[in-house]
Amino acid sequence: MQRKLRMGMIGGGRGAMIGGVHRIAAQLDGQIELVCGAFSRSAENSKASGRDLFLPDDRIYGSYQKMLAAEAALPEGDRMDFVTIVTPNDSHFPIAMAALDAGFDVVCDKPMTLTLAHARKLEKKVADTGLLFCLTHNYTGYPMVKEARELVRGGAMGKVRRLVVEYPQGWLATALEKDNKQAGWRTDPKRAGASCCMGDIGSHAENLAEYVTGLRIKEMCADLATFVKGRKLDDDGSVLLRFNNGARGILWASQIAIGRENGLNIRVFCERGALEWHQQEPNTLVVDWTDKPRELRRTATPFLGAAASAAARIPPGHPEGFLEGFANLYRNFADALRQRMAGKKVREATVDYPTVQDGVRGMAFLETVVRAGSSKQKWIAMKG
Amino acid sequence: MQRKLRMGMIGGGRGAMIGGVHRIAAQLDGQIELVCGAFSRSAENSKASGRDLFLPDDRIYGSYQKMLAAEAALPEGDRMDFVTIVTPNDSHFPIAMAALDAGFDVVCDKPMTLTLAHARKLEKKVADTGLLFCLTHNYTGYPMVKEARELVRGGAMGKVRRLVVEYPQGWLATALEKDNKQAGWRTDPKRAGASCCMGDIGSHAENLAEYVTGLRIKEMCADLATFVKGRKLDDDGSVLLRFNNGARGILWASQIAIGRENGLNIRVFCERGALEWHQQEPNTLVVDWTDKPRELRRTATPFLGAAASAAARIPPGHPEGFLEGFANLYRNFADALRQRMAGKKVREATVDYPTVQDGVRGMAFLETVVRAGSSKQKWIAMKG
Amino acid sequence: MQRKLRMGMIGGGRGAMIGGVHRIAAQLDGQIELVCGAFSRSAENSKASGRDLFLPDDRIYGSYQKMLAAEAALPEGDRMDFVTIVTPNDSHFPIAMAALDAGFDVVCDKPMTLTLAHARKLEKKVADTGLLFCLTHNYTGYPMVKEARELVRGGAMGKVRRLVVEYPQGWLATALEKDNKQAGWRTDPKRAGASCCMGDIGSHAENLAEYVTGLRIKEMCADLATFVKGRKLDDDGSVLLRFNNGARGILWASQIAIGRENGLNIRVFCERGALEWHQQEPNTLVVDWTDKPRELRRTATPFLGAAASAAARIPPGHPEGFLEGFANLYRNFADALRQRMAGKKVREATVDYPTVQDGVRGMAFLETVVRAGSSKQKWIAMKG
Amino acid sequence: MQRKLRMGMIGGGRGAMIGGVHRIAAQLDGQIELVCGAFSRSAENSKASGRDLFLPDDRIYGSYQKMLAAEAALPEGDRMDFVTIVTPNDSHFPIAMAALDAGFDVVCDKPMTLTLAHARKLEKKVADTGLLFCLTHNYTGYPMVKEARELVRGGAMGKVRRLVVEYPQGWLATALEKDNKQAGWRTDPKRAGASCCMGDIGSHAENLAEYVTGLRIKEMCADLATFVKGRKLDDDGSVLLRFNNGARGILWASQIAIGRENGLNIRVFCERGALEWHQQEPNTLVVDWTDKPRELRRTATPFLGAAASAAARIPPGHPEGFLEGFANLYRNFADALRQRMAGKKVREATVDYPTVQDGVRGMAFLETVVRAGSSKQKWIAMKG
Repeated sequence: MQRKLRMGMIGGGRGAMIGGVHRIAAQLDGQIELVCGAFSRSAENSKASGRDLFLPDDRIYGSYQKMLAAEAALPEGDRMDFVTIVTPNDSHFPIAMAALDAGFDVVCDKPMTLTLAHARKLEKKVADTGLLFCLTHNYTGYPMVKEARELVRGGAMGKVRRLVVEYPQGWLATALEKDNKQAGWRTDPKRAGASCCMGDIGSHAENLAEYVTGLRIKEMCADLATFVKGRKLDDDGSVLLRFNNGARGILWASQIAIGRENGLNIRVFCERGALEWHQQEPNTLVVDWTDKPRELRRTATPFLGAAASAAARIPPGHPEGFLEGFANLYRNFADALRQRMAGKKVREATVDYPTVQDGVRGMAFLETVVRAGSSKQKWIAMKG
Repeated sequence: MQRKLRMGMIGGGRGAMIGGVHRIAAQLDGQIELVCGAFSRSAENSKASGRDLFLPDDRIYGSYQKMLAAEAALPEGDRMDFVTIVTPNDSHFPIAMAALDAGFDVVCDKPMTLTLAHARKLEKKVADTGLLFCLTHNYTGYPMVKEARELVRGGAMGKVRRLVVEYPQGWLATALEKDNKQAGWRTDPKRAGASCCMGDIGSHAENLAEYVTGLRIKEMCADLATFVKGRKLDDDGSVLLRFNNGARGILWASQIAIGRENGLNIRVFCERGALEWHQQEPNTLVVDWTDKPRELRRTATPFLGAAASAAARIPPGHPEGFLEGFANLYRNFADALRQRMAGKKVREATVDYPTVQDGVRGMAFLETVVRAGSSKQKWIAMKG
Repeated sequence: MQRKLRMGMIGGGRGAMIGGVHRIAAQLDGQIELVCGAFSRSAENSKASGRDLFLPDDRIYGSYQKMLAAEAALPEGDRMDFVTIVTPNDSHFPIAMAALDAGFDVVCDKPMTLTLAHARKLEKKVADTGLLFCLTHNYTGYPMVKEARELVRGGAMGKVRRLVVEYPQGWLATALEKDNKQAGWRTDPKRAGASCCMGDIGSHAENLAEYVTGLRIKEMCADLATFVKGRKLDDDGSVLLRFNNGARGILWASQIAIGRENGLNIRVFCERGALEWHQQEPNTLVVDWTDKPRELRRTATPFLGAAASAAARIPPGHPEGFLEGFANLYRNFADALRQRMAGKKVREATVDYPTVQDGVRGMAFLETVVRAGSSKQKWIAMKG
Repeated sequence: MQRKLRMGMIGGGRGAMIGGVHRIAAQLDGQIELVCGAFSRSAENSKASGRDLFLPDDRIYGSYQKMLAAEAALPEGDRMDFVTIVTPNDSHFPIAMAALDAGFDVVCDKPMTLTLAHARKLEKKVADTGLLFCLTHNYTGYPMVKEARELVRGGAMGKVRRLVVEYPQGWLATALEKDNKQAGWRTDPKRAGASCCMGDIGSHAENLAEYVTGLRIKEMCADLATFVKGRKLDDDGSVLLRFNNGARGILWASQIAIGRENGLNIRVFCERGALEWHQQEPNTLVVDWTDKPRELRRTATPFLGAAASAAARIPPGHPEGFLEGFANLYRNFADALRQRMAGKKVREATVDYPTVQDGVRGMAFLETVVRAGSSKQKWIAMKG
């Protein structure tokens, strides 16, 4: 197929944050171009936002419903190939359902839905339509996360025993929601769902843990807390985890950890080795073995496995960062999409991006952790 | 008093590890000299060990009973002033009781006893005799731990909300106890008590958390694990904590964390600030505030509080380490002892070393964590 | 102007490295689109490369001469707005001259030319045509470099006294040029000019030093070395610097420093403060003062000056990296270009990208350092 | 020999800094005891200082001359075995000469003398008397410096090509000498000799470079500076080095580098590998190879060579620091001394402490660097 893939976007208008990140990431490799959008519930704001992005007026829509209908009606050579959803959490589900119904492949920001029930419905819809669905758990796009995964799954370190995954942030240590839009919807049960901290960032930690190890959380014991007065949802939480192979885990997420920016990190301890990765220094993977000194593996050096090598764009020593990791999801998704559009069965290796199943898993985590947080029972099984 | 204080030692003969550390730490400041010892249950090994240390034969004893009796019988100008106990855990209690009964002040390696009941008896004995008792939770001797404590307790950061304390080690990731003496007694329920990992290093984490914050653990939820086959005690454990002011905590200790040496670290998050300290880089305290960039406070620089300043010996930029921190306990103890020997009431500020109350607290932690680890009840109160 | 700026590219075909970086950086912010190119001296390779980038065949050219002529002949609404030159060093000069003669603004990879004489001619040409010229000394695009510059130039730290700037790499520690294209032209005097190490990376160090401090190198004393047998140009060099305000400097660049990736770093010591920055951890600026603890300033946090704040795209704690820094040059250049195309005088604050004057300065450095390296005279003045 | 070695001390009275460090280091391993001293030129201060150290009045002397005479007159079973000189630089030479003449082995703080001529005289005296002489270039006592040395000298890394050694401090960034005793004598040409910065800390850098590599400086090019107004000696200096095997070096020392404490560090680049060590994190050695990821070697782990292993006292993960490194000099010296006193030839491997030859070398460096600093000639040969 000798052309760029055409992306439409729902959400991400002026004043939004993550929409711009998606646009940069999607277009980073020159494989995808933004062709249309419904950027806001306000038709006026949508128009202004689309013009900022140099879109022609007839491809800027006042609502996602209008966009899906109009684009579906365009000839195949013109209409968008897939749609990216970057609206607040509460509208992910209806929009994704509608987009799939209209025949479009979907990229959706996380969390996928507000409830596990919705997640399962979406899962079924994806299966029924045969369309692709990518959920942007972007942190798994870093080269050294892929190296970590290959190291653990390859078996050289033996069985996983102990895992510690953390995502501390400090930006909600005060009642910022009073005058900050980003803080506002995240701490509002109506728009964010049953959890603030666990839904927003705990879910990234959960996803990273399962991605790197290939293990599944079996049961958990949780302690959720709300430290800022008047806040209605959790802003911190610690969770003990037990995995399906018997490994134990700690998951800690916090938005009141002053001084922490996006401190996502993971440590995995196996029988014969261990590894450690920090999102804020994403190009280094710390590797330990029982029988030799600590190794520092670095992005784009010649000492890495295939997956990590494929995920890097620039020479070693130049920071491969957040946008590049994010772009890897889009790159892999675009690759899968080209296969699907060519009528081929998508090769399994291509699907190195979070899918609707990861979304279901995330919602299962979220519903379980919220329940575990308020339960007097020590261990609560996680199903999903 | 124009002379050095005279120390006797019980335990710490050839092949032991911590005894040598105590001798170096005790004598570091030139305020204390080793004058006698019962270094081993084997009279022969005791003799050889004492000669290595250049002690005269008549001050090297074949048993602690003989030593306590003989030293007590010496004239005041000759006999030891206090005794240091560095035997395996199971004998701390009887030896400490005997030493106090014989009228000697005591320095005792941790854990203080094998059971909480013994800890309480010892506490009572210390109270009854009016003698001093120092428990070597040595990590609280580092200058920057004292700075951390002063920062948190001084109130500038507001109330403590969230605490994470960890002590990962990797040396027991394999069945080392088969041919390593140090590993052997630690993993033997008879000599180590009800716990290996929590007793040996979890207790340091507990002590550090309470020392820095001044808070008390109110209740806990624990998950203890034994990963190495055939091992009878825990080699890893994670604990959720709730403190008396409502703060939440995570305590993780592990001896199967490959690549970790003595990775004790603490992070404390308060309402207006936060701090982080790592034992392996002990001269840096990371300090965060809501309203300014991260600060790195460093040992012996002119920007520190009184307690941290007093605890440093050498110019900034020269690593103040483990031995110096350990020696701070002895220095403070020696100071208190000189006051007591001069018939004065010991000034409260002097007692900046762990006392028998810390030992009781430690045993309460240990008994609670072991119980919580095997309990199906989520939260177990900690009393003591 | 309600459209994207249109970029043409010369060089950067299949197998090249820096061309792809320029394309990503240029298009990162959605302000610029690639519309045409002459990607290789081989018309065939150029065609294939252009198709990879989804360009229409009639905008893919077989030579830069054809491209400049054809594009100039297109109507204003269609033709490219500016041209980016990413060919090997030896062709920068003729292509840049031709592009300016054809009326196109220019972005040029560094080093600008092979000789100082050519640099001066190019400087004159830029002045004569009134067109814009951007030289991609990309490392000055990092947010924290801008923060450093603002800190030093603002005067709060007092006069600069001592500067240490380094750029160690290790990739040429062996005779890699035997079978590596990138190593091949860099070590070939015909294509690389009078220097390998100093030209390729020493010039970045020089540019960074003058950018951050605003000082000018007055004279230098150099020791250049070639460690790999058979190599014809320097692969390592150390230089003592004296600046126009009396400050002293050390510049070290090396391509044989095993284990070093792109280890560019700078330390500046002033009368009342100091700062340190490392390209491989570009989001942290270490700041020291005589009267308070060390500060760590971080990209995108609320504690920064205007220039650093403007240069960040994503929330704090997400690595702002190499591509984003590179893109900042393009963003600033695009901003200036829009002003020029609108017939306005370009505002001085906009010109925060390296210009032809920086290129002249770089060539002056290079010619001086090569001369100083082989001179028996201790200090050699730098003019330019 | 079943007794501790007896040390006398000259200098190091109340208010001094380095004397206390020597006493701690000397006595750390329980092999050496302080038995007498002439702690000050003031007999009164000497007396008070000696009493602080619990010495009997008849072993506290009012001058070094009296001490040497009196101690020499004592019976062998009582008199000191060796003398430690910790006076200001200008008196090292006469005292050391007198001590050797009186038949005592000597430990002397650095720099050994004020001039190269005196250094050579002292060297001859040591040879003539057959006594031992230890110069406390203490930084070579760290375990990981010994590991570095073994790695480089063992040859696995191939020939040394490039070396960068630095010793930045910031404490003299202002005119501290106005009211600080330590700053006072160091910046006074009469007491400090021809150099402040190079003599005080540059000499440590020089010693470390030659210790680790086994190379000899052949010639140098220097730029010394005095940044603080009114100061008479250098407070910063950079030096280009050429070694006897063709390797190139940079040596930078500074006392005006704000924020730097005792930032001594060394980087050595060889044909097949490289290493890096920082005094402020002394327990980590960074090791790079051309064919595998970076290694971090750590003190007291099982992966080290014999010399590093022998130099550690405590388990891995506990900071082995400055005092322990300092003590290693005393331990090795004590070992050599016991051999000499037993009438044996001192085994070469024992002499892992700086000797009078290192002192000569240091003075040669100092005289050359001062000359090179003011010379217009580029390269000045170093002889000595």
